[in-house]
Amino acid sequence: MKRMPVGKAFTLMESGPVVFIATNDGKKANIMTITWTMVVDFTPLFAITTGPWNYSYAALRKTRECVIAIPTVDLIDTVVGVGTCSGADTDKFERFGLTRVKGRHVRAPLIRECLANIECKVIDIVKKHSIVVLEGVAAYFDGSRKEKRTLHAIGDGTFIVDGRRLDRRKAMRAKIPAGV
Amino acid sequence: MKRMPVGKAFTLMESGPVVFIATNDGKKANIMTITWTMVVDFTPLFAITTGPWNYSYAALRKTRECVIAIPTVDLIDTVVGVGTCSGADTDKFERFGLTRVKGRHVRAPLIRECLANIECKVIDIVKKHSIVVLEGVAAYFDGSRKEKRTLHAIGDGTFIVDGRRLDRRKAMRAKIPAGV
Repeated sequence: MKRMPVGKAFTLMESGPVVFIATNDGKKANIMTITWTMVVDFTPLFAITTGPWNYSYAALRKTRECVIAIPTVDLIDTVVGVGTCSGADTDKFERFGLTRVKGRHVRAPLIRECLANIECKVIDIVKKHSIVVLEGVAAYFDGSRKEKRTLHAIGDGTFIVDGRRLDRRKAMRAKIPAGV
Repeated sequence: MKRMPVGKAFTLMESGPVVFIATNDGKKANIMTITWTMVVDFTPLFAITTGPWNYSYAALRKTRECVIAIPTVDLIDTVVGVGTCSGADTDKFERFGLTRVKGRHVRAPLIRECLANIECKVIDIVKKHSIVVLEGVAAYFDGSRKEKRTLHAIGDGTFIVDGRRLDRRKAMRAKIPAGV
């Protein structure tokens, strides 16, 4: 897991992959699976939809920080497992054999088994819409991993795996931030 | 293009596809390409990130309505083309050979060449974060189309095409809304 420029971290999220949100409420670390996420700007800012119905929400509100960890297709049953039990009664790191890695800016852990991790600060909670706005402050990518295909949830219990990549960099040049 | 239950429309957006937003400001119809979108609830509500830097934003603000149209991989050069010119000086429907179809609830047009279309009302604009919250009020799906693979932007000028689909409906059952 190597650091990458945080100014490129939006490219980890823009395609809409299923992600884990890791938190640490001061007593223990927890993880949830979410797919309702969006890039909000290139710095980067991200929005996620969550609220009191997710056990992790209390930790997000209290600590104002989290880690977005991006799993690949080989972790699909972990993605589903993490998403269908609660941190209220389960140590999800232990149950799913995931490894906590200490971050630099937040107490929430990175997840070693993931392709990428983004340390985030909660910069706002738009309660009316249950939207939490996050600022990415550090990003990491595991380039040594052979499997790099992420998952996209459909919402009906099926998931789409990344397929082939098409290059339109030349035509898109004017839209790509410097350094990306 | 057949109507589908609006309660299933979140499944068109949850995977994070690149989409068109079609508007009609009363004078003419316009389209933009966006990829910063998120499901906010199952009814469905969606969030998109946009602001005055997009020509379509004025129409969104003024008319409080739009259509989300979801293109497939065969339209990649239209996606890129629509995203790299402005409605200020271009009739994008004409330039890109796209066909307007009249909607039921909004004056913004559906796009015949797309896999799916969702008529939407703007229910809120969170100006602080440039987040526009949309409510889907009608949804359409072109089941007769052979090509159903959508595109996911990375943000560096490359795009990922939908790959294979993995079924975890049994394990996810408790998380799937009734009727989906």
